[in-house]
Amino acid sequence: MDLSRTIAAVATPTGTGALAIIRISGKMAFENISHCLFSPEKFLKAETGKIFLHKFKKSGTEQVIDEVTVIKYREPYSYTGENMVEIFCHGGPYIVRSIIRELNASGIDGAQKGEFTRRAFLNGKMDLTKAEAVKSVIECKNEIENRIAISALDGEQRRRLENWKEEIIKVLIQIETEIEFEEDHDVITEKTGKTKILDLIAIIKDDLKKRGKIKEIEGGFRIVIAGPANAGKSTLFNQMIGYQRALTHKEPGTTRDWISEKWYLEGNEIILIDTAGIRETDNEVERAGIDRSLQEIGRANITIWVTSADEELSTEEIKSIKDLSDKNSIFLINKTDLNKNENKENLFNTEGIPVYKTSLTRDKDIQNITEEINSRINRIKNTIEFPDIISSVRQESIARDILDVLIESIENWGRAEIAAHYLNKSLEYIEEIIGKKDNEEVLNRIFEGFCIGK
Amino acid sequence: MDLSRTIAAVATPTGTGALAIIRISGKMAFENISHCLFSPEKFLKAETGKIFLHKFKKSGTEQVIDEVTVIKYREPYSYTGENMVEIFCHGGPYIVRSIIRELNASGIDGAQKGEFTRRAFLNGKMDLTKAEAVKSVIECKNEIENRIAISALDGEQRRRLENWKEEIIKVLIQIETEIEFEEDHDVITEKTGKTKILDLIAIIKDDLKKRGKIKEIEGGFRIVIAGPANAGKSTLFNQMIGYQRALTHKEPGTTRDWISEKWYLEGNEIILIDTAGIRETDNEVERAGIDRSLQEIGRANITIWVTSADEELSTEEIKSIKDLSDKNSIFLINKTDLNKNENKENLFNTEGIPVYKTSLTRDKDIQNITEEINSRINRIKNTIEFPDIISSVRQESIARDILDVLIESIENWGRAEIAAHYLNKSLEYIEEIIGKKDNEEVLNRIFEGFCIGK
Repeated sequence: MDLSRTIAAVATPTGTGALAIIRISGKMAFENISHCLFSPEKFLKAETGKIFLHKFKKSGTEQVIDEVTVIKYREPYSYTGENMVEIFCHGGPYIVRSIIRELNASGIDGAQKGEFTRRAFLNGKMDLTKAEAVKSVIECKNEIENRIAISALDGEQRRRLENWKEEIIKVLIQIETEIEFEEDHDVITEKTGKTKILDLIAIIKDDLKKRGKIKEIEGGFRIVIAGPANAGKSTLFNQMIGYQRALTHKEPGTTRDWISEKWYLEGNEIILIDTAGIRETDNEVERAGIDRSLQEIGRANITIWVTSADEELSTEEIKSIKDLSDKNSIFLINKTDLNKNENKENLFNTEGIPVYKTSLTRDKDIQNITEEINSRINRIKNTIEFPDIISSVRQESIARDILDVLIESIENWGRAEIAAHYLNKSLEYIEEIIGKKDNEEVLNRIFEGFCIGK
Repeated sequence: MDLSRTIAAVATPTGTGALAIIRISGKMAFENISHCLFSPEKFLKAETGKIFLHKFKKSGTEQVIDEVTVIKYREPYSYTGENMVEIFCHGGPYIVRSIIRELNASGIDGAQKGEFTRRAFLNGKMDLTKAEAVKSVIECKNEIENRIAISALDGEQRRRLENWKEEIIKVLIQIETEIEFEEDHDVITEKTGKTKILDLIAIIKDDLKKRGKIKEIEGGFRIVIAGPANAGKSTLFNQMIGYQRALTHKEPGTTRDWISEKWYLEGNEIILIDTAGIRETDNEVERAGIDRSLQEIGRANITIWVTSADEELSTEEIKSIKDLSDKNSIFLINKTDLNKNENKENLFNTEGIPVYKTSLTRDKDIQNITEEINSRINRIKNTIEFPDIISSVRQESIARDILDVLIESIENWGRAEIAAHYLNKSLEYIEEIIGKKDNEEVLNRIFEGFCIGK
């Protein structure tokens, strides 16, 4: 990575908006840009961190492309740690394209994905956990992911890892002292050291478990609407998302394949899934659809089981309901305007399963279901525990390596040199999470997942 | 429009990017936002126009949603002329949504389309020509539209209109003096006044003509690829846009309907159109496609006529070529690798029409054609003249009204009172272009075409 280049990229999403931001970073950023401004002296003399109005022009001409505002940041007091400029221009594609073109013509290169953050890392402005957190903050879909990302962005994770390093180093010093002065072998310090390492092992094991839970909701809460055919599932789906996405019809078996849409509840992104109705059928296509319904129920964070008041309970359905009642499920007896099915209600009452009686054309019912979903989501949120040191797939994989070598060190505790070898190895892995600047391949892998302009 | 509300909106395009901007405007902007920041005092005391790092949190909690930078602007030194804040947050949809949610919870309303600019207008920060220019800058697609919009944004248009007003008022004063002191009737000043008005009439007529030319390229230059069937038109189209968009086949008549793609040349947006090959056919679908090809040629700013070296010239084609040679057209004899058709070349030579001999698999040919297109576009650009006072459809329509009343005033020049009536009317129309604050309906129409956040 050639840090002597000055780089530029649009930092806001593509498309048309009121404003866009173009970021420039590099030693020569100020000089390069000044050719494109109507008042280069005003720009070069301007106070840093302060916003000023400028006319951005075609360099070498007096032709103004846009009236922009500009902020200068002097190294090392910038995001990348280099001289940086942020240009706030009108958010039209022609404007953004033309400004980038002029910057390129003035000797500024296009930035690669994540190059700003990568430079921040290489210039010591942030460690790798924080760099990864930047990406996680941008990509988070719900409060849980947001909180994990923000905590890593705040450096919480790095501070813990630094502590771990210190503790492991202390243990290593103990062990190495023991190796050198074997006669002074002190059983008490040995135990303390071993306990420390066992503590770390316990924390990693715990983190991996916590991480498993979090992965279940990563990318959005999955809410699956399921139940027998023709119970009103697609109607519920459409009502929730607010428009006629799923085809509805009085014919049972109308929905053949699952359909999903994004839905937002208190800011959280939810993947709402409508599935094919479950029933005995000889039709192969429908059967395949039902298999996929069952798969979706298996992956759901919350299942909404919709059954119709005007149909009898099958043995199969009773089994499904009992299975689901142990999981995070909401039960609706729908179409209560058509029929009062005491049987169905009785089953739920006998089993002690709470059930909503609904008629899905009523707004009140949708409101109640939404509130119920919200309280279920809050319940899931409250069961989530935040890992101490793991907040990404990459970190999870390294954490497993740390776990392995720490276990090895414990298993070889009696053979001090071998234990020390493994503890040293664990330090290397921790360094890897925090980030080594010379590992080009790892850095490429991390930063190519970023967006341009970050 | 209730100016006492504090409003907020995301100002950058929707989607995922490195950064997003959220704008807030209104009397209570500072106080309202401070509840969402970790260090409200630091924020409230901060210097205006300077960027500071803040933690944006869920109000009433300590839960950080994002690390953001914030700029405060104190009225009247802001875009809207009100207290304003710009929040630069990470550009993820969850982050943007959550910040807007918290702002709403803190008593800030969602902004309507164009409400920031509308407030700027209502607070006297800009006239209506400038407000409209903001929209034009965002929407411009090429250098011409950009230059017109920037000139209006710079206030050029308003200054001219103010001059017009002054001149018309001077003429009116003359006329009214004449009405009062009819005996002092001064033929010389009468002539001067009339000449002034005639000058303005000439300018408007000229503007309307210029406007007609500009409309031809509004929304992007239209380049149409046309010619006989199986000449390689779709191959050229695909080569230009850089991927296989159009189906190509050695079978003549492969392209049945026109296809268009955006293409960019030196920053200008071009609508590149591939059309059905023109030939005698009994097939109705193909015939309909050919009719549409002819329509597209009619609307083109530049036509590229592609003909094949291995086919003879039909009388029809000779006619098409002669017709097009008067317009902005580029001619290619393609497939010269297959055949050297002296006949075709001779026709072009005899008629003195420049022609490219190409084999469209060669990069060099594409490069030459691109350069030729670029020089044609520059030629179009150079013929464009910029109107003095008209830069939008709304203004064009009012300009026609001004023209009408000025002509009426001239026609009634002898009857001073009537002439004065029409001149007064023209002043009202000019006021309408610059913008009257009490015309809710006109303002609604203008600002509802804006994006949210502008």
